[in-house]
Amino acid sequence: MSSSTLLDELIEALRCLPGVGAKTAQRMAHHLLERNRDGGRRLATKLGDAMQRIGNCQRCRNFSESEVCALCRNASREAQQLCVVEMPADQAAIEQATGYRGHYFVLLGRLSPLDGLGPKELGLDLLSARLAEGEVTELIIATNPTVEGEATAHYLAQVARQHGVRPSRLAHGVPLGGELEYIDRGTLAHAFGSRLDV
Amino acid sequence: MSSSTLLDELIEALRCLPGVGAKTAQRMAHHLLERNRDGGRRLATKLGDAMQRIGNCQRCRNFSESEVCALCRNASREAQQLCVVEMPADQAAIEQATGYRGHYFVLLGRLSPLDGLGPKELGLDLLSARLAEGEVTELIIATNPTVEGEATAHYLAQVARQHGVRPSRLAHGVPLGGELEYIDRGTLAHAFGSRLDV
Repeated sequence: MSSSTLLDELIEALRCLPGVGAKTAQRMAHHLLERNRDGGRRLATKLGDAMQRIGNCQRCRNFSESEVCALCRNASREAQQLCVVEMPADQAAIEQATGYRGHYFVLLGRLSPLDGLGPKELGLDLLSARLAEGEVTELIIATNPTVEGEATAHYLAQVARQHGVRPSRLAHGVPLGGELEYIDRGTLAHAFGSRLDV
Repeated sequence: MSSSTLLDELIEALRCLPGVGAKTAQRMAHHLLERNRDGGRRLATKLGDAMQRIGNCQRCRNFSESEVCALCRNASREAQQLCVVEMPADQAAIEQATGYRGHYFVLLGRLSPLDGLGPKELGLDLLSARLAEGEVTELIIATNPTVEGEATAHYLAQVARQHGVRPSRLAHGVPLGGELEYIDRGTLAHAFGSRLDV
């Protein structure tokens, strides 16, 4: 038995975090109680706030606490480029790694009929309406290079062409700093086939 | 830039958890928002509650939301045995691993004069008063086998003897399932020196 029911409940609640098991949850709870109660209190407030108030942007479907997110409202971003990603984490990765200054569209999934994810669930009607506005000239397709991601990319390229928008796709090949010897066959074959003149 | 200020604040707040960096914090925030808002809300409530209400038991100094913790109040535990540990996590480990049915006393540290941790900070006046009550007959010393833990154990043994209480200490030696070849020299030498008749 434990000395505190509330502590047991906190440890149980912490296990909803990904990758956190019983032992880690206990370590986290003890750490906060022993050394960082202010941090714990701040986390409790922010967490409650975020779960309550964060929804999805009506324009790009990314996380947002307002109807239209800060990025969509930002007039200094280029309106001609629209980058389509599967998940909010992909958007964050591109935003952090590249100097891209255009807008995003988040599918919140990938085409997967068996899971009941069709064009409607991915908000492709919203995307079509956006392309029909006529401002976007390039649709940058940044879905994952998986089977479902490729199928989604293929579909998105068709949608773009229907609206007279140029579709483009992230380059696939050997990662920087990778060694040919250790790269998987599929990637190597693709990189070899898509070699560029220098 | 990000699509949501509140999301950025949540990610920052999550970093107060031990072992959670920027990347993990982002993954946790996205996971909760995408898949487990109920879990996130429950965590927010429990966390706020725990930070506010959990203090230390007045009898054993372990975490407790009441003045005296559930374990100290439990009349079915044996009052003759008192096990002294450094931290609440040590108490939890002993409680989970062993069939111990006595009571605990938590030092919330170890003797370390350089860090300003003396007998007073470890609540040894409280421990002395407890031993003076006369119910305890065995003081099980379960401090860590570090230099400071050993010094603390030595001191605790003296306190116990002053009150006519028998001090005992966890056995040190080769861990079960360990291989002699890979055990550190200190442990092996100790185990060899403390060999028992069979």
